[in-house]
Amino acid sequence: MYPTLPPSSEIPGKGSFVTITPLGNVLEGASRPVFFRGVATVCMKLFNIVQPERVYFGQKDVQQTVVIRRMVEDFHLNTEVKIGPTQREADGLAMSSRNVYLGARRRTVGVVLSQALKAAEEQWNKGKRSRNDILWAANDKAMMKMFEQGELKPKERAMFEVDYISLADPDTLEEVEEVDESKGAILSGAIKMMPLEEPQEGEECGLGGGAVPVRLIDNIILKPIKSNGPKVHFG
Amino acid sequence: MYPTLPPSSEIPGKGSFVTITPLGNVLEGASRPVFFRGVATVCMKLFNIVQPERVYFGQKDVQQTVVIRRMVEDFHLNTEVKIGPTQREADGLAMSSRNVYLGARRRTVGVVLSQALKAAEEQWNKGKRSRNDILWAANDKAMMKMFEQGELKPKERAMFEVDYISLADPDTLEEVEEVDESKGAILSGAIKMMPLEEPQEGEECGLGGGAVPVRLIDNIILKPIKSNGPKVHFG
Repeated sequence: MYPTLPPSSEIPGKGSFVTITPLGNVLEGASRPVFFRGVATVCMKLFNIVQPERVYFGQKDVQQTVVIRRMVEDFHLNTEVKIGPTQREADGLAMSSRNVYLGARRRTVGVVLSQALKAAEEQWNKGKRSRNDILWAANDKAMMKMFEQGELKPKERAMFEVDYISLADPDTLEEVEEVDESKGAILSGAIKMMPLEEPQEGEECGLGGGAVPVRLIDNIILKPIKSNGPKVHFG
Repeated sequence: MYPTLPPSSEIPGKGSFVTITPLGNVLEGASRPVFFRGVATVCMKLFNIVQPERVYFGQKDVQQTVVIRRMVEDFHLNTEVKIGPTQREADGLAMSSRNVYLGARRRTVGVVLSQALKAAEEQWNKGKRSRNDILWAANDKAMMKMFEQGELKPKERAMFEVDYISLADPDTLEEVEEVDESKGAILSGAIKMMPLEEPQEGEECGLGGGAVPVRLIDNIILKPIKSNGPKVHFG
Protein backbone atom coordinates (compact mmCIF):
# COMPACT_ATOMS: atom_id res chain seq x y z
CA MET A 1 0.00 0.00 0.00
CA TYR A 2 2.89 2.34 0.71
CA PRO A 3 5.60 1.67 -1.89
CA THR A 4 7.77 4.66 -0.99
CA LEU A 5 7.47 6.91 2.06
CA PRO A 6 5.59 5.65 5.12
CA PRO A 7 2.45 7.76 5.57
CA SER A 8 2.74 10.97 7.52
CA SER A 9 -0.02 12.11 9.81
CA GLU A 10 1.27 15.66 10.10
CA ILE A 11 -0.56 18.40 8.26
CA PRO A 12 2.31 19.40 5.99
CA GLY A 13 3.48 15.78 6.02
CA LYS A 14 5.75 14.22 3.43
CA GLY A 15 4.17 11.78 1.05
CA SER A 16 1.72 11.37 -1.79
CA PHE A 17 -1.76 12.45 -0.82
CA VAL A 18 -5.23 13.05 -2.14
CA THR A 19 -6.86 16.01 -0.46
CA ILE A 20 -10.50 16.91 -0.90
CA THR A 21 -11.03 20.38 0.49
CA PRO A 22 -12.94 21.97 2.08
CA LEU A 23 -15.07 18.80 2.36
CA GLY A 24 -12.43 17.04 4.40
CA ASN A 25 -11.94 19.89 6.84
CA VAL A 26 -15.44 20.46 8.20
CA LEU A 27 -17.48 18.44 10.75
CA GLU A 28 -15.50 15.29 11.63
CA GLY A 29 -12.48 16.73 9.80
CA ALA A 30 -12.45 19.88 11.93
CA SER A 31 -11.07 18.05 14.95
CA ARG A 32 -9.05 15.55 12.86
CA PRO A 33 -7.39 17.67 10.19
CA VAL A 34 -5.64 14.90 8.24
CA PHE A 35 -8.20 12.14 8.71
CA PHE A 36 -10.03 12.50 5.39
CA ARG A 37 -6.76 13.07 3.57
CA GLY A 38 -5.84 9.60 4.82
CA VAL A 39 -9.21 8.16 3.83
CA ALA A 40 -9.08 9.62 0.32
CA THR A 41 -5.45 8.63 -0.20
CA VAL A 42 -5.86 5.06 0.92
CA CYS A 43 -9.12 4.62 -1.02
CA MET A 44 -7.53 6.01 -4.19
CA LYS A 45 -4.75 3.43 -3.84
CA LEU A 46 -7.15 0.61 -3.09
CA PHE A 47 -9.47 1.52 -5.97
CA ASN A 48 -6.52 1.65 -8.36
CA ILE A 49 -5.30 -1.76 -7.24
CA VAL A 50 -8.70 -3.49 -7.26
CA GLN A 51 -10.36 -1.53 -10.10
CA PRO A 52 -13.78 -2.28 -8.59
CA GLU A 53 -17.01 -1.88 -10.56
CA ARG A 54 -18.74 -0.81 -7.36
CA VAL A 55 -17.55 0.32 -3.93
CA TYR A 56 -19.72 0.08 -0.83
CA PHE A 57 -19.66 2.44 2.12
CA GLY A 58 -21.95 2.78 5.11
CA GLN A 59 -24.07 5.85 5.60
CA LYS A 60 -23.11 6.11 9.25
CA ASP A 61 -19.80 7.72 8.28
CA VAL A 62 -21.65 10.15 6.08
CA GLN A 63 -18.78 12.59 5.58
CA GLN A 64 -16.65 9.73 4.33
CA THR A 65 -19.33 8.89 1.76
CA VAL A 66 -19.42 12.50 0.56
CA VAL A 67 -15.63 12.69 0.33
CA ILE A 68 -15.44 9.41 -1.58
CA ARG A 69 -18.24 10.40 -3.97
CA ARG A 70 -16.45 13.66 -4.62
CA MET A 71 -13.12 11.93 -5.16
CA VAL A 72 -14.66 9.45 -7.60
CA GLU A 73 -16.32 12.31 -9.47
CA ASP A 74 -13.40 14.77 -9.50
CA PHE A 75 -10.78 12.19 -10.42
CA HIS A 76 -13.01 10.46 -12.97
CA LEU A 77 -12.67 7.09 -11.29
CA ASN A 78 -14.56 4.41 -13.15
CA THR A 79 -16.49 2.99 -10.22
CA GLU A 80 -19.95 3.30 -8.72
CA VAL A 81 -20.32 4.38 -5.10
CA LYS A 82 -23.07 2.54 -3.24
CA ILE A 83 -24.15 3.61 0.24
CA GLY A 84 -25.66 1.11 2.65
CA PRO A 85 -28.10 2.35 5.33
CA THR A 86 -27.04 2.76 8.94
CA GLN A 87 -27.79 -0.30 11.05
CA ARG A 88 -29.52 0.57 14.32
CA GLU A 89 -30.34 -1.00 17.66
CA ALA A 90 -34.05 -1.41 18.48
CA ASP A 91 -34.17 1.97 20.26
CA GLY A 92 -32.48 3.79 17.38
CA LEU A 93 -28.85 3.95 18.51
CA ALA A 94 -26.61 3.64 15.47
CA MET A 95 -24.57 0.46 15.62
CA SER A 96 -20.85 1.06 16.00
CA SER A 97 -17.84 -0.92 17.12
CA ARG A 98 -17.38 1.80 19.73
CA ASN A 99 -20.63 1.02 21.48
CA VAL A 100 -18.95 -1.74 23.50
CA TYR A 101 -17.19 1.00 25.46
CA LEU A 102 -20.45 2.58 26.59
CA GLY A 103 -21.69 0.22 29.29
CA ALA A 104 -25.35 0.07 30.33
CA ARG A 105 -25.68 3.54 31.88
CA ARG A 106 -24.12 5.48 29.00
CA ARG A 107 -25.79 3.20 26.47
CA THR A 108 -29.24 4.30 27.70
CA VAL A 109 -28.38 7.97 27.52
CA GLY A 110 -26.41 7.70 24.26
CA VAL A 111 -29.59 7.10 22.30
CA VAL A 112 -30.24 10.83 22.70
CA LEU A 113 -28.20 11.53 19.55
CA SER A 114 -30.42 9.50 17.23
CA GLN A 115 -33.50 10.85 19.02
CA ALA A 116 -32.32 14.43 18.56
CA LEU A 117 -31.70 13.91 14.84
CA LYS A 118 -35.05 12.14 14.51
CA ALA A 119 -36.78 15.11 16.16
CA ALA A 120 -35.19 17.47 13.65
CA GLU A 121 -36.17 15.17 10.78
CA GLU A 122 -39.78 15.40 11.97
CA GLN A 123 -39.64 19.15 11.50
CA TRP A 124 -38.40 18.62 7.94
CA ASN A 125 -41.19 16.12 7.35
CA LYS A 126 -43.67 18.72 8.63
CA GLY A 127 -42.49 21.09 5.93
CA LYS A 128 -39.98 23.16 7.85
CA ARG A 129 -37.08 24.29 5.65
CA SER A 130 -35.07 26.85 7.60
CA ARG A 131 -32.13 25.90 9.76
CA ASN A 132 -33.58 27.16 13.01
CA ASP A 133 -36.99 25.60 12.38
CA ILE A 134 -35.35 22.21 11.85
CA LEU A 135 -32.45 22.21 14.30
CA TRP A 136 -34.22 23.62 17.36
CA ALA A 137 -35.90 20.27 17.86
CA ALA A 138 -32.57 18.43 17.92
CA ASN A 139 -30.94 20.96 20.21
CA ASP A 140 -33.96 20.94 22.48
CA LYS A 141 -33.94 17.15 22.76
CA ALA A 142 -30.22 17.14 23.60
CA MET A 143 -30.55 19.94 26.11
CA MET A 144 -33.47 18.31 27.89
CA LYS A 145 -31.55 15.07 28.23
CA MET A 146 -28.48 16.91 29.45
CA PHE A 147 -30.56 18.74 32.07
CA GLU A 148 -32.29 15.53 33.14
CA GLN A 149 -28.98 13.79 33.66
CA GLY A 150 -27.49 16.77 35.47
CA GLU A 151 -30.28 16.49 38.04
CA LEU A 152 -29.40 12.87 38.84
CA LYS A 153 -26.82 11.76 41.35
CA PRO A 154 -23.26 11.12 40.04
CA LYS A 155 -23.68 7.38 40.63
CA GLU A 156 -26.77 7.31 38.41
CA ARG A 157 -26.12 9.76 35.64
CA ALA A 158 -24.26 9.67 32.33
CA MET A 159 -23.15 13.12 31.27
CA PHE A 160 -22.34 14.10 27.69
CA GLU A 161 -21.31 17.05 25.58
CA VAL A 162 -22.66 17.98 22.17
CA ASP A 163 -19.80 18.36 19.71
CA TYR A 164 -22.00 19.54 16.86
CA ILE A 165 -25.47 19.27 15.37
CA SER A 166 -25.19 20.06 11.68
CA LEU A 167 -27.55 20.75 8.79
CA ALA A 168 -25.40 20.69 5.70
CA ASP A 169 -25.49 20.71 1.92
CA PRO A 170 -25.27 17.07 0.72
CA ASP A 171 -22.53 17.81 -1.83
CA THR A 172 -20.35 20.40 -0.12
CA LEU A 173 -21.17 19.78 3.56
CA GLU A 174 -21.39 23.52 4.02
CA GLU A 175 -23.89 24.50 6.69
CA VAL A 176 -27.16 25.68 5.18
CA GLU A 177 -29.52 28.38 6.44
CA GLU A 178 -32.38 27.14 4.28
CA VAL A 179 -32.68 23.66 2.83
CA ASP A 180 -33.05 23.54 -0.95
CA GLU A 181 -35.81 20.98 -1.47
CA SER A 182 -34.30 19.85 -4.73
CA LYS A 183 -31.06 18.93 -2.98
CA GLY A 184 -32.17 17.94 0.49
CA ALA A 185 -29.61 18.06 3.29
CA ILE A 186 -27.53 16.02 5.66
CA LEU A 187 -28.56 16.24 9.28
CA SER A 188 -25.70 14.99 11.43
CA GLY A 189 -24.36 15.18 14.91
CA ALA A 190 -21.64 14.10 17.29
CA ILE A 191 -21.77 13.82 21.05
CA LYS A 192 -19.18 12.84 23.57
CA MET A 193 -20.27 10.52 26.38
CA MET A 194 -18.14 11.52 29.34
CA PRO A 195 -16.35 9.00 31.58
CA LEU A 196 -18.69 7.34 34.02
CA GLU A 197 -18.89 8.98 37.44
CA GLU A 198 -18.88 6.71 40.47
CA PRO A 199 -19.22 3.28 38.84
CA GLN A 200 -21.20 1.03 41.17
CA GLU A 201 -20.36 -2.41 42.49
CA GLY A 202 -21.41 -4.93 39.83
CA GLU A 203 -22.41 -2.25 37.33
CA GLU A 204 -21.93 -3.19 33.66
CA CYS A 205 -19.57 -0.38 32.67
CA GLY A 206 -18.53 -1.61 29.22
CA LEU A 207 -15.09 -2.26 27.82
CA GLY A 208 -12.57 -0.02 29.57
CA GLY A 209 -14.69 0.20 32.70
CA GLY A 210 -16.39 3.46 31.73
CA ALA A 211 -13.16 5.39 32.17
CA VAL A 212 -12.75 6.61 28.60
CA PRO A 213 -15.01 9.13 26.91
CA VAL A 214 -16.93 7.70 23.94
CA ARG A 215 -17.65 9.87 20.95
CA LEU A 216 -20.81 8.93 19.05
CA ILE A 217 -21.77 10.12 15.58
CA ASP A 218 -24.98 9.70 13.64
CA ASN A 219 -26.84 11.23 10.73
CA ILE A 220 -30.07 11.28 8.79
CA ILE A 221 -30.35 12.17 5.12
CA LEU A 222 -33.14 14.64 4.39
CA LYS A 223 -33.96 13.42 0.91
CA PRO A 224 -34.62 15.82 -1.95
CA ILE A 225 -38.29 16.41 -2.62
CA LYS A 226 -38.35 17.81 -6.12
CA SER A 227 -36.00 15.94 -8.43
CA ASN A 228 -33.43 18.15 -10.12
CA GLY A 229 -32.29 15.95 -12.98
CA PRO A 230 -30.22 12.84 -12.45
CA LYS A 231 -27.97 14.16 -9.69
CA VAL A 232 -29.93 12.75 -6.78
CA HIS A 233 -27.32 11.34 -4.49
CA PHE A 234 -29.17 9.66 -1.70
CA GLY A 235 -32.15 7.52 -2.62
CA MET B 1 -11.84 17.64 -16.51
CA TYR B 2 -13.27 19.66 -13.61
CA PRO B 3 -16.69 18.21 -12.73
CA THR B 4 -17.16 20.20 -9.53
CA LEU B 5 -15.08 23.12 -8.28
CA PRO B 6 -12.97 25.10 -10.74
CA PRO B 7 -9.31 24.54 -9.89
CA SER B 8 -7.73 26.81 -7.34
CA SER B 9 -4.18 28.01 -7.69
CA GLU B 10 -3.87 29.15 -4.10
CA ILE B 11 -1.81 27.09 -1.69
CA PRO B 12 -4.67 26.20 0.67
CA GLY B 13 -7.02 26.25 -2.32
CA LYS B 14 -10.38 24.55 -2.43
CA GLY B 15 -10.70 21.48 -4.58
CA SER B 16 -9.58 17.90 -5.06
CA PHE B 17 -5.85 17.62 -5.39
CA VAL B 18 -3.01 15.16 -5.61
CA THR B 19 0.04 16.42 -3.79
CA ILE B 20 3.42 14.74 -3.99
CA THR B 21 5.62 16.20 -1.28
CA PRO B 22 8.38 17.12 -0.79
CA LEU B 23 9.14 16.22 -4.44
CA GLY B 24 6.83 18.90 -5.75
CA ASN B 25 8.24 21.65 -3.54
CA VAL B 26 11.92 21.63 -4.43
CA LEU B 27 13.75 22.97 -7.53
CA GLU B 28 11.11 24.18 -10.00
CA GLY B 29 8.44 23.80 -7.33
CA ALA B 30 10.27 26.11 -4.93
CA SER B 31 9.32 29.20 -6.91
CA ARG B 32 5.97 27.78 -8.07
CA PRO B 33 4.47 26.19 -4.96
CA VAL B 34 1.30 24.75 -6.52
CA PHE B 35 2.65 23.91 -9.95
CA PHE B 36 3.33 20.21 -9.40
CA ARG B 37 0.12 19.83 -7.44
CA GLY B 38 -1.60 20.94 -10.63
CA VAL B 39 0.49 18.60 -12.78
CA ALA B 40 -0.18 15.59 -10.56
CA THR B 41 -3.88 16.36 -10.19
CA VAL B 42 -4.52 16.83 -13.89
CA CYS B 43 -2.45 13.78 -14.84
CA MET B 44 -4.30 11.62 -12.31
CA LYS B 45 -7.60 12.69 -13.88
CA LEU B 46 -6.32 12.16 -17.41
CA PHE B 47 -4.85 8.75 -16.61
CA ASN B 48 -8.12 7.67 -15.00
CA ILE B 49 -10.12 8.79 -18.02
CA VAL B 50 -7.81 7.30 -20.66
CA GLN B 51 -6.53 4.26 -18.69
CA PRO B 52 -3.34 4.28 -20.80
CA GLU B 53 -1.00 1.29 -20.98
CA ARG B 54 1.91 3.72 -21.29
CA VAL B 55 2.37 7.43 -20.71
CA TYR B 56 5.16 9.43 -22.34
CA PHE B 57 6.92 12.43 -20.85
CA GLY B 58 9.99 14.35 -21.97
CA GLN B 59 13.15 14.34 -19.91
CA LYS B 60 13.56 18.09 -20.25
CA ASP B 61 10.98 18.63 -17.51
CA VAL B 62 12.80 16.18 -15.32
CA GLN B 63 11.07 17.08 -12.07
CA GLN B 64 7.74 16.43 -13.75
CA THR B 65 8.95 12.96 -14.73
CA VAL B 66 10.01 12.22 -11.16
CA VAL B 67 6.70 13.47 -9.74
CA ILE B 68 4.69 11.40 -12.25
CA ARG B 69 6.76 8.26 -11.64
CA ARG B 70 6.22 8.70 -7.92
CA MET B 71 2.50 9.28 -8.36
CA VAL B 72 2.15 6.17 -10.53
CA GLU B 73 4.09 4.15 -7.97
CA ASP B 74 2.47 5.50 -4.80
CA PHE B 75 -1.09 5.36 -6.12
CA HIS B 76 -0.61 1.97 -7.80
CA LEU B 77 -1.63 3.27 -11.21
CA ASN B 78 -1.58 0.55 -13.81
CA THR B 79 0.49 2.35 -16.42
CA GLU B 80 4.09 2.46 -17.56
CA VAL B 81 5.95 5.77 -17.55
CA LYS B 82 8.25 6.25 -20.55
CA ILE B 83 10.67 9.14 -20.71
CA GLY B 84 11.83 10.50 -24.06
CA PRO B 85 15.26 12.16 -24.31
CA THR B 86 15.62 15.93 -24.47
CA GLN B 87 15.82 17.24 -28.02
CA ARG B 88 18.66 19.68 -28.53
CA GLU B 89 19.84 22.26 -31.04
CA ALA B 90 23.18 21.54 -32.76
CA ASP B 91 25.12 23.51 -30.11
CA GLY B 92 23.42 21.73 -27.24
CA LEU B 93 20.66 24.16 -26.22
CA ALA B 94 17.65 22.18 -25.09
CA MET B 95 14.72 22.74 -27.41
CA SER B 96 11.83 24.58 -25.81
CA SER B 97 8.82 26.52 -26.96
CA ARG B 98 10.25 29.39 -24.94
CA ASN B 99 13.34 29.69 -27.09
CA VAL B 100 11.49 31.87 -29.59
CA TYR B 101 11.59 34.65 -26.99
CA LEU B 102 15.38 34.62 -26.81
CA GLY B 103 16.44 36.37 -30.04
CA ALA B 104 19.89 35.92 -31.54
CA ARG B 105 21.97 37.56 -28.83
CA ARG B 106 20.45 35.76 -25.86
CA ARG B 107 20.24 32.54 -27.88
CA THR B 108 24.04 32.49 -28.24
CA VAL B 109 24.61 33.06 -24.54
CA GLY B 110 21.76 30.78 -23.40
CA VAL B 111 23.68 27.71 -24.46
CA VAL B 112 25.80 28.24 -21.33
CA LEU B 113 23.28 26.21 -19.31
CA SER B 114 23.73 23.01 -21.30
CA GLN B 115 27.48 23.63 -21.44
CA ALA B 116 27.66 24.05 -17.68
CA LEU B 117 25.75 20.82 -17.06
CA LYS B 118 27.89 19.04 -19.64
CA ALA B 119 31.04 20.23 -17.85
CA ALA B 120 29.74 18.78 -14.59
CA GLU B 121 28.83 15.54 -16.32
CA GLU B 122 32.42 15.25 -17.52
CA GLN B 123 33.58 15.29 -13.91
CA TRP B 124 31.18 12.44 -13.15
CA ASN B 125 32.49 10.54 -16.19
CA LYS B 126 36.03 11.06 -14.89
CA GLY B 127 35.04 9.30 -11.69
CA LYS B 128 34.20 12.26 -9.46
CA ARG B 129 31.43 11.47 -6.99
CA SER B 130 31.27 14.31 -4.47
CA ARG B 131 29.01 17.31 -4.95
CA ASN B 132 31.78 19.88 -5.03
CA ASP B 133 33.96 17.84 -7.37
CA ILE B 134 31.09 17.61 -9.84
CA LEU B 135 29.35 20.95 -9.53
CA TRP B 136 32.38 23.24 -9.50
CA ALA B 137 32.73 22.69 -13.24
CA ALA B 138 29.16 23.82 -13.93
CA ASN B 139 29.42 26.81 -11.64
CA ASP B 140 32.77 27.73 -13.15
CA LYS B 141 31.39 27.57 -16.69
CA ALA B 142 28.43 29.76 -15.75
CA MET B 143 30.55 32.25 -13.86
CA MET B 144 33.04 32.57 -16.71
CA LYS B 145 30.26 33.28 -19.17
CA MET B 146 28.68 35.78 -16.82
CA PHE B 147 32.00 37.57 -16.39
CA GLU B 148 32.63 37.53 -20.15
CA GLN B 149 29.23 39.09 -20.84
CA GLY B 150 29.65 41.64 -18.08
CA GLU B 151 32.79 42.91 -19.82
CA LEU B 152 30.92 43.58 -23.07
CA LYS B 153 29.04 46.76 -23.89
CA PRO B 154 25.31 46.81 -23.05
CA LYS B 155 24.43 46.80 -26.76
CA GLU B 156 26.40 43.58 -27.27
CA ARG B 157 25.88 41.55 -24.17
CA ALA B 158 23.17 39.22 -22.85
CA MET B 159 23.18 39.05 -19.08
CA PHE B 160 21.71 36.19 -17.08
CA GLU B 161 21.24 34.96 -13.55
CA VAL B 162 21.69 31.43 -12.28
CA ASP B 163 18.57 30.29 -10.46
CA TYR B 164 20.04 26.97 -9.38
CA ILE B 165 22.48 24.26 -10.34
CA SER B 166 21.38 21.07 -8.63
CA LEU B 167 22.79 17.61 -8.05
CA ALA B 168 19.92 15.57 -6.70
CA ASP B 169 18.79 12.08 -5.79
CA PRO B 170 16.87 10.64 -8.78
CA ASP B 171 13.96 9.42 -6.65
CA THR B 172 13.58 12.11 -4.00
CA LEU B 173 15.20 15.11 -5.72
CA GLU B 174 16.95 15.86 -2.45
CA GLU B 175 20.34 17.49 -2.96
CA VAL B 176 23.16 14.98 -2.51
CA GLU B 177 26.63 15.53 -1.08
CA GLU B 178 27.98 12.33 -2.57
CA VAL B 179 26.47 10.49 -5.51
CA ASP B 180 25.56 6.87 -4.85
CA GLU B 181 26.84 5.04 -7.94
CA SER B 182 24.06 2.50 -7.73
CA LYS B 183 21.44 5.25 -7.99
CA GLY B 184 23.12 7.91 -10.07
CA ALA B 185 21.84 11.47 -9.84
CA ILE B 186 20.01 14.22 -11.64
CA LEU B 187 22.12 17.16 -12.62
CA SER B 188 19.84 20.09 -13.39
CA GLY B 189 19.85 23.82 -13.65
CA ALA B 190 17.81 26.91 -14.36
CA ILE B 191 19.00 30.29 -15.57
CA LYS B 192 17.17 33.49 -16.28
CA MET B 193 18.17 35.39 -19.41
CA MET B 194 17.59 39.02 -18.54
CA PRO B 195 15.78 41.46 -20.84
CA LEU B 196 17.99 42.64 -23.68
CA GLU B 197 19.84 45.86 -23.04
CA GLU B 198 19.95 48.43 -25.86
CA PRO B 199 18.45 46.40 -28.71
CA GLN B 200 20.05 47.52 -31.96
CA GLU B 201 18.46 48.67 -35.20
CA GLY B 202 17.58 45.55 -37.22
CA GLU B 203 18.65 43.17 -34.46
CA GLU B 204 16.73 39.90 -34.29
CA CYS B 205 15.42 40.19 -30.74
CA GLY B 206 12.96 37.31 -30.72
CA LEU B 207 9.26 37.27 -29.91
CA GLY B 208 8.48 40.08 -27.49
CA GLY B 209 11.42 42.17 -28.70
CA GLY B 210 13.78 40.97 -25.99
CA ALA B 211 11.84 42.84 -23.33
CA VAL B 212 10.84 39.85 -21.23
CA PRO B 213 13.21 37.71 -19.20
CA VAL B 214 13.42 34.10 -20.42
CA ARG B 215 13.90 31.32 -17.90
CA LEU B 216 15.71 28.26 -19.28
CA ILE B 217 15.89 24.85 -17.65
CA ASP B 218 17.93 21.80 -18.57
CA ASN B 219 19.20 18.59 -17.05
CA ILE B 220 21.42 15.58 -17.54
CA ILE B 221 20.85 12.20 -15.92
CA LEU B 222 23.97 10.75 -14.34
CA LYS B 223 23.13 7.11 -14.86
CA PRO B 224 23.69 4.49 -12.19
CA ILE B 225 26.89 2.56 -12.62
CA LYS B 226 26.34 -0.56 -10.56
CA SER B 227 22.88 -1.99 -11.00
CA ASN B 228 20.92 -2.29 -7.78
CA GLY B 229 18.19 -4.72 -8.73
CA PRO B 230 15.39 -3.84 -11.11
CA LYS B 231 14.82 -0.28 -9.92
CA VAL B 232 16.91 1.47 -12.56
CA HIS B 233 14.82 4.41 -13.58
CA PHE B 234 16.66 6.05 -16.41
CA GLY B 235 18.10 3.80 -19.09
